[in-house]
Amino acid sequence: MFETLHQDPHSLARTGRLVTAHGAVETPAFVAVATRGTVKGVEPQALEELGVEIVISNSYHLHLRPGEETVAHLGGLHRFSGWNGPMMTDSGGFQVFSLGAGKEHGVGKVASIFPDDEPPRAPSARRTARPLVRLTEDGVWFRSTVDGSVHFFSPEGVIDLERKLGADIAFVLDECTSPLHNRAYTEAAMERTHRWAERALRAFSRPPEEPPSNPAQVLYGIVQGGAYPDLRRASARLIGGMGFFGLAIGGSLGRSRDEMQQVLEWTVPLLPEDRPRHLLGIGQIQDLFAVVRRGIDTFDCAAPTRMARNGTLFVREARAHRINLRNASFREDPRPIDPACDCFTCQRHSRAYLRHLCLTGELSFYRLATLHNLRFLVRLVEEIRGAIVVGTLDELESDWLADGG
Amino acid sequence: MFETLHQDPHSLARTGRLVTAHGAVETPAFVAVATRGTVKGVEPQALEELGVEIVISNSYHLHLRPGEETVAHLGGLHRFSGWNGPMMTDSGGFQVFSLGAGKEHGVGKVASIFPDDEPPRAPSARRTARPLVRLTEDGVWFRSTVDGSVHFFSPEGVIDLERKLGADIAFVLDECTSPLHNRAYTEAAMERTHRWAERALRAFSRPPEEPPSNPAQVLYGIVQGGAYPDLRRASARLIGGMGFFGLAIGGSLGRSRDEMQQVLEWTVPLLPEDRPRHLLGIGQIQDLFAVVRRGIDTFDCAAPTRMARNGTLFVREARAHRINLRNASFREDPRPIDPACDCFTCQRHSRAYLRHLCLTGELSFYRLATLHNLRFLVRLVEEIRGAIVVGTLDELESDWLADGG
Repeated sequence: MFETLHQDPHSLARTGRLVTAHGAVETPAFVAVATRGTVKGVEPQALEELGVEIVISNSYHLHLRPGEETVAHLGGLHRFSGWNGPMMTDSGGFQVFSLGAGKEHGVGKVASIFPDDEPPRAPSARRTARPLVRLTEDGVWFRSTVDGSVHFFSPEGVIDLERKLGADIAFVLDECTSPLHNRAYTEAAMERTHRWAERALRAFSRPPEEPPSNPAQVLYGIVQGGAYPDLRRASARLIGGMGFFGLAIGGSLGRSRDEMQQVLEWTVPLLPEDRPRHLLGIGQIQDLFAVVRRGIDTFDCAAPTRMARNGTLFVREARAHRINLRNASFREDPRPIDPACDCFTCQRHSRAYLRHLCLTGELSFYRLATLHNLRFLVRLVEEIRGAIVVGTLDELESDWLADGG
Repeated sequence: MFETLHQDPHSLARTGRLVTAHGAVETPAFVAVATRGTVKGVEPQALEELGVEIVISNSYHLHLRPGEETVAHLGGLHRFSGWNGPMMTDSGGFQVFSLGAGKEHGVGKVASIFPDDEPPRAPSARRTARPLVRLTEDGVWFRSTVDGSVHFFSPEGVIDLERKLGADIAFVLDECTSPLHNRAYTEAAMERTHRWAERALRAFSRPPEEPPSNPAQVLYGIVQGGAYPDLRRASARLIGGMGFFGLAIGGSLGRSRDEMQQVLEWTVPLLPEDRPRHLLGIGQIQDLFAVVRRGIDTFDCAAPTRMARNGTLFVREARAHRINLRNASFREDPRPIDPACDCFTCQRHSRAYLRHLCLTGELSFYRLATLHNLRFLVRLVEEIRGAIVVGTLDELESDWLADGG
C-alpha cells in the first residue's frame, strides 16, 4: 500500500508512506545498497540503529552466488540475510548489460552491449575473453563473471528468480542503454523493454509453481528511453498505464546532472500520482534535493557506502559536503568526522584515528566510515521529509548550499 | 597490582586479578590482538560487549604508522583508539627481527636476522630488496616495510615509544630468536636481551622528559633462551629477579606443541610467584589448557581473528573445535555457527548466509566471523577460570576433548 501525505506547494516533492509486509517506509526515502544481501561491512542490526528504512539487493549477483534456490531453501532473502525490514530486489538488467562485460573487461557501457545481428567478436590477441552478453527478443544470455558459466535471464525467469528471493518490492527485467547509444538503438531497446514489461506483468499475475518466499511481494515497472524526451514521455505513459504497483526511472539518465533532472521532468509528471516512484541508482548526495523536488519517492544510492570505503566522508560544513580522510591535514585532528553528527563513529572516534585506520587499510575503517555516511544521509533525508511537511524545502536547500554545496 | 586468588591443586594453573588504571583483568585471560590500534574489523564497543578484557597493540606497527608522536598528541593510545580498558603494547622486537624481512620477503625467521659481523647481503639478481634489519649491541636498525625509511630501536628508545603510546602494560625490547638458530647464537642473543632488559628497566625508572600518556604504566621483562633448557632456566632466574612488574615468555617456543610446553615447564616454576606471567603469541586454541596448566596468567593469540578472516570458525562439538565455512556441506545449513554460542553472529545468522558472505569476500563476513571466534574464546577462558576456582579443570578439559579435541 502506498499513500501520499504532504505535497510541496512549489515543486513535485511530496511525503508519503509505503507499507510492506516487513514494515512501512516514510518517503522520500533513501534505499541502502545491499548488493549481495549485505550492506558492505554493516550488519542488519546496525542498519536498524542507523535509521535505514529499506535496502535493495541485486538479483543478478544473488543468482550467481549463492543462487536463488539456496536463498529460497533458507526461507527467502529476509531470513537468509537477517534484515527484517522492507527490501527491494533490482532485476539485474543493469548488471547483465553493463556491469558484466563493462566492469570486468574495462569497456564502457556501449561496448558491453551488442545487438542481435552482430556476430560475436573474435577473441583479440590482447583480450581473449569471450563476449559476456547476448541479447535476444526472448531475453539475455550472459556469462557469469564468477566462473564463466552461461546463464539466461528472461522477463518471466526474473519474476521467478525474484519470487524465490522474496523481497517486498521486485523490479521487472529491462534493458539499460548507454548515453552513447544512438536514437534508433535506444528506441528499439525501449520498445523491447516495453514488451518485456508486459511479459513480466503477465508472469507476475500467474500463480507461482511453488509457494513464493513473500506472498505480499509487489512489482515495479521501469521507464526507459535514454535522453530523448519523446521516448521518455512515451515510455512513461506506457509503463505508467500498465498497472504496476510502482514505477521506476531507469537506464541512461543523461550525461550530466542537468540531463538527469530533465529526464525526471519529462517522465514523472506523466506517471500516475497514486503510485510510488523510484529512481534507480543516483550517484551524488548533491542530486538529492533535485531528485526529491522532481517527485521521486525512493532512490537507491551506492555513494555513501562506496565513498566511505574510499576514505570520503560526508560533512555538512565542508566543500561539496565531504572530506577525504587521506588528506594530511587530518593527521592530528582530534575532532569527530562531523561535529554535528550523532552516529556511532562520531561519538567515539577522531578524524586522526580514522585516517590512521584508512591509511593502514584496517577492516574496521570500512565499517566505521560506512556507518557515518549512512547515518548522515538518513538524517538528511529525514530533514527533507520534515521540510516538505512544514513547507520549508527551499530554505533547507539554501541552508545546505550555504554550508558547503 | 596483581594478586593470585585460587591455585589449582593438580597443576600450576591459578586464577588472579591484574589491576590497571583502566580496569581489572580476571586471569587467566585471553588478550585480543589489536596490532595497529584496532582488533581487525571489531570496534571497541563490540569488544566490550564480547567480554574481551584486555587488548595488545604493537609498538613497531604504531611507530611506523601513525607514529607515537601523533598518538601522544591525541592523548595516548587509549584515547586515540577509543578502547578504554586494559591494554598492553608489545615492544616490536618480534616484528623487527622476524616480521620485517621475513614476511615482506618471503624468508623464514632465520634469514631475517643476521649477526653483527656478517656483511650486508649484496642485492641478488632476483631479489633486489636491501637488508631490512641490522643488529648491534646498542639496538637494532631496520627499514620500514611501509616506505623504506630507516629506523632505530634501542631498549631505551622503545621505553620512550611505549610511554608515548601509554598502554597499561609495556614490554621490553628483546631479540626473538628462531627455532633454527644454533645454541651459540641463541645464547649470545639471550645475553644481549638480558643486557637490554637492564637498560630498559633503568630507562623506565628514570622520570620521562615529557609527561607520559599513562603514569600508571608498568613494565614486563621477557624470558628468552630458545629451546635450550639451561638457557631458559638461566633467563627465567635472571629476568625473574630483576624487579619487573610482570614477566613474559618470549621467543622461540620450540618446533612443536610439546616443545612449547617444555619451555613453560623449564621457566615458569623459576619465576617469582607473585608476578603475572604472560605468554607472547600462542597459536592454537588447543594450546589453551596446556598453557594455563603450566602457570600462564595472560596470553595473546591472533588465532581467533586471523582464522575467522580465513573462514575457520570455532565450534565446540567439531573436530579440532573448528569448521571451515568454505566447505560445501554448509551451503544450505540453516544452523548458527555453534548452536551453543551466545554471540551476536550466532543469534542472527546461519552458516549458509555466512558461507555466502565468506565466498563473496564481503566485508561483513570478516566482522561477523571475528565476533564469533572472539566470543567463543572469551567464554572458554571464562569456563577455565571457573573450573580452576572449583577444582574441576581436569574434567573441563576432558569434556572439551570428548566434544572435539
